[in-house]
Amino acid sequence: MDMIKPRTLSGFMELLPGKQAQMERMMEILRKTYALYGFAPLDTPIIEDAQILLAKGGGETEKQIYRFAKGDSDLAMRFDLTVPLAKYVALHYNDLAFPFRRYQIGKVYRGERAQRGRFREFYQADIDIVGDGKLDILNEAEIPSIIYQIFKAFGLSRFQIRVNNRKILNGFYAMLSLSERAGDIMRTVDKLDKIGADKVRTILVEDCGISQEDAQEILKFIAISGTNAQVLSALEGYRGRSEIFDLGLDELKAVTENLGAFGVPEENFAVDLTIARGLDYYTGTVYETTLLDHPEIGSVCSGGRYDNLAGYYTDRPLPGVGISIGLTRLFYVLDEQGLLNPEMNSAPADALVIPMTDDRCAAISLAQSLRNQGVRVQVYGEQKKFKQKMSYADKLGVPYAILLGEDEIAAGKCSVKDLRTGVQVTVSAQEAAELILADVKKSGSSAVILEK
Amino acid sequence: MDMIKPRTLSGFMELLPGKQAQMERMMEILRKTYALYGFAPLDTPIIEDAQILLAKGGGETEKQIYRFAKGDSDLAMRFDLTVPLAKYVALHYNDLAFPFRRYQIGKVYRGERAQRGRFREFYQADIDIVGDGKLDILNEAEIPSIIYQIFKAFGLSRFQIRVNNRKILNGFYAMLSLSERAGDIMRTVDKLDKIGADKVRTILVEDCGISQEDAQEILKFIAISGTNAQVLSALEGYRGRSEIFDLGLDELKAVTENLGAFGVPEENFAVDLTIARGLDYYTGTVYETTLLDHPEIGSVCSGGRYDNLAGYYTDRPLPGVGISIGLTRLFYVLDEQGLLNPEMNSAPADALVIPMTDDRCAAISLAQSLRNQGVRVQVYGEQKKFKQKMSYADKLGVPYAILLGEDEIAAGKCSVKDLRTGVQVTVSAQEAAELILADVKKSGSSAVILEK
Repeated sequence: MDMIKPRTLSGFMELLPGKQAQMERMMEILRKTYALYGFAPLDTPIIEDAQILLAKGGGETEKQIYRFAKGDSDLAMRFDLTVPLAKYVALHYNDLAFPFRRYQIGKVYRGERAQRGRFREFYQADIDIVGDGKLDILNEAEIPSIIYQIFKAFGLSRFQIRVNNRKILNGFYAMLSLSERAGDIMRTVDKLDKIGADKVRTILVEDCGISQEDAQEILKFIAISGTNAQVLSALEGYRGRSEIFDLGLDELKAVTENLGAFGVPEENFAVDLTIARGLDYYTGTVYETTLLDHPEIGSVCSGGRYDNLAGYYTDRPLPGVGISIGLTRLFYVLDEQGLLNPEMNSAPADALVIPMTDDRCAAISLAQSLRNQGVRVQVYGEQKKFKQKMSYADKLGVPYAILLGEDEIAAGKCSVKDLRTGVQVTVSAQEAAELILADVKKSGSSAVILEK
Repeated sequence: MDMIKPRTLSGFMELLPGKQAQMERMMEILRKTYALYGFAPLDTPIIEDAQILLAKGGGETEKQIYRFAKGDSDLAMRFDLTVPLAKYVALHYNDLAFPFRRYQIGKVYRGERAQRGRFREFYQADIDIVGDGKLDILNEAEIPSIIYQIFKAFGLSRFQIRVNNRKILNGFYAMLSLSERAGDIMRTVDKLDKIGADKVRTILVEDCGISQEDAQEILKFIAISGTNAQVLSALEGYRGRSEIFDLGLDELKAVTENLGAFGVPEENFAVDLTIARGLDYYTGTVYETTLLDHPEIGSVCSGGRYDNLAGYYTDRPLPGVGISIGLTRLFYVLDEQGLLNPEMNSAPADALVIPMTDDRCAAISLAQSLRNQGVRVQVYGEQKKFKQKMSYADKLGVPYAILLGEDEIAAGKCSVKDLRTGVQVTVSAQEAAELILADVKKSGSSAVILEK
């Protein structure tokens, strides 16, 4: 037979079973947390009509998209989950209840130049709340609570949800009569962390053509910091000079004042006036989430409020708020940083039943009874030496081996060996299940991420 | 803004939220059941190098595959989960423990001619057990148990796992010196249900050139039926005439004799000599699963034993056994047949908290405390009339509304209204959670499929 060397395309993540188990745990946490907040799971095709995916058109998207013909059809693979959501809501409008809350965890595709840590196929985990005509600010206030619950459940505590409001930024630049140059200014201000205030000032004045005085005002504004109360109080000083600013400030206060009720501790949340999140799409609250000990990773969960989800497909105004987690990239950097918890049980089974007699009927029955009680069990069926059987258990990382020989069968018992400690006890099937499940429950609560 | 009419491509399933919830339940059952048997979850790219996916080449696959160029790359979308598994095992051989047990639930793509009930993008839910050089018959015996547990958990009891062994068929045709014509014969015999014995005989004699005597032998053989014990006993009558037949019979006996230990009732299992499952790939036990009241659907879960998983990528012999559920098609036909349980709670939340005061802080706190206890909760935040709020709850199908007015807040209670019965009680948050969770647990055990 002619053989071809197996390989996986670069830019496509393919995990070994242990790592995959950790990824699955993260997905399970996402599904569970999103569901607790009443989001409906959604699944849309990966392939769509290219005309529909590219309705907005232009720029990087068009270059990166995987697009191809099949018969007469002009097809493309989705590059995010927002465009398919817009299509879905416009298409199924009459069948949906609004506000429509959906989560979607799915693969998206971007044919970017391959480089380390960049993926061409990657998971996004999105939630959106889409209103019909209007959407109350309460929905924007709820988002930090959801982000908080997810990252807590991942095992993190050293993270910060940073929030701003685009109306505050737009209103502030309107005060300075700089609305038309707001885009350039925000792109420059965004570099503050990297290049420092002096260089930002130089660029603002020399490249953006801003006066020294306005540049000073801008730097003073974005330097506002402190506790949330201090920032909000400083912002109050600007009230009354721009209607849009005042509205933004009211919204920001509404988002922050319910944090306690939503169970988000102050230390995991910060009003941050440097957050802008792109230029056109977002119109209200914007969110970024950073790992405090790994600022170099950038935002791991971002999003915001928008006014017009599906303007390319319907003339109904569909405002909404959403966030997205780039799951594949997050998983990749967590792994790179050594933050994935090695103590998490990532074996495919809790116990390996090893029959010690020729007739394996008793071993099968035992395994079946353990499964009925919720224990994940493999029966080792291969005709190998005992040492090889144990070596399989080791390689699998399974925490328990259950040995079933003639003596055990005669006594209606089984020998349960903890492979981490070497301790072996001979107990009934019922006791074995209880013993293993208690341990699984304990290690099941061990987080997928372990902070150092 | 120029608008484009939203649409979803034909042959691509896109479900409304209620139906999607039912699909998700089926996926959860699959994940859970596969995990109980110690299968590791796996996720491979949807796009692979076209050369690798088409290593086997030829036929329908090549015509149906979505294949396209991006830069210098010749890419294709997977058309099943078996070829990617073969690649995975060959590529990661040194990092895997054998027998390697994996499950994968993922989308696959076939650009077939669109027709009702045929999908171009569909989920397959596969398990495989892959051995390194050898694989014990015990693994083949375990498969019916897994199929049984899955369909039971879906809510079905009227189904039958039909099993045969390719060695028995091959051995039988060898006895008649018809090995070379076995393919034609099996294709003909496969039509027995549709065209009847007389027509099968005619085709065998006239088109396949089989003697009247041999045709008679073949019809007699495939007519063997009855209880498993009766079929096995009839097969014993052929023993001693072909080594391969005898081996197949031993394997079939090994598969059937452990059924009881594996917890599979006799009525859900049948030895069926008419099952063949294609011609080349399978070499031992083969499986099909039919719904007894809906034979027209055909097999909903099929698979078998093979000797050489990855011959195109490695010269290591990798025998295995696997089954596959065509999940999208199964879901489609269950829905068409009206078999999806309308009583299953497919709402995205268990309760909708409706704040009756301007300050919504108490409502948010209540929702958060219910979520902490595992209740899926939405807070209704829109400024609408009470009637519209209740109409939203109705449209969502949420079982409980929780009303929180000044009286309730002052008393530290909330009013829980069962929207199906209209019964309303005023209780503490703790009691509300207990009440709702008890109900959720009950309806959570309501099956996704309801037999009529």
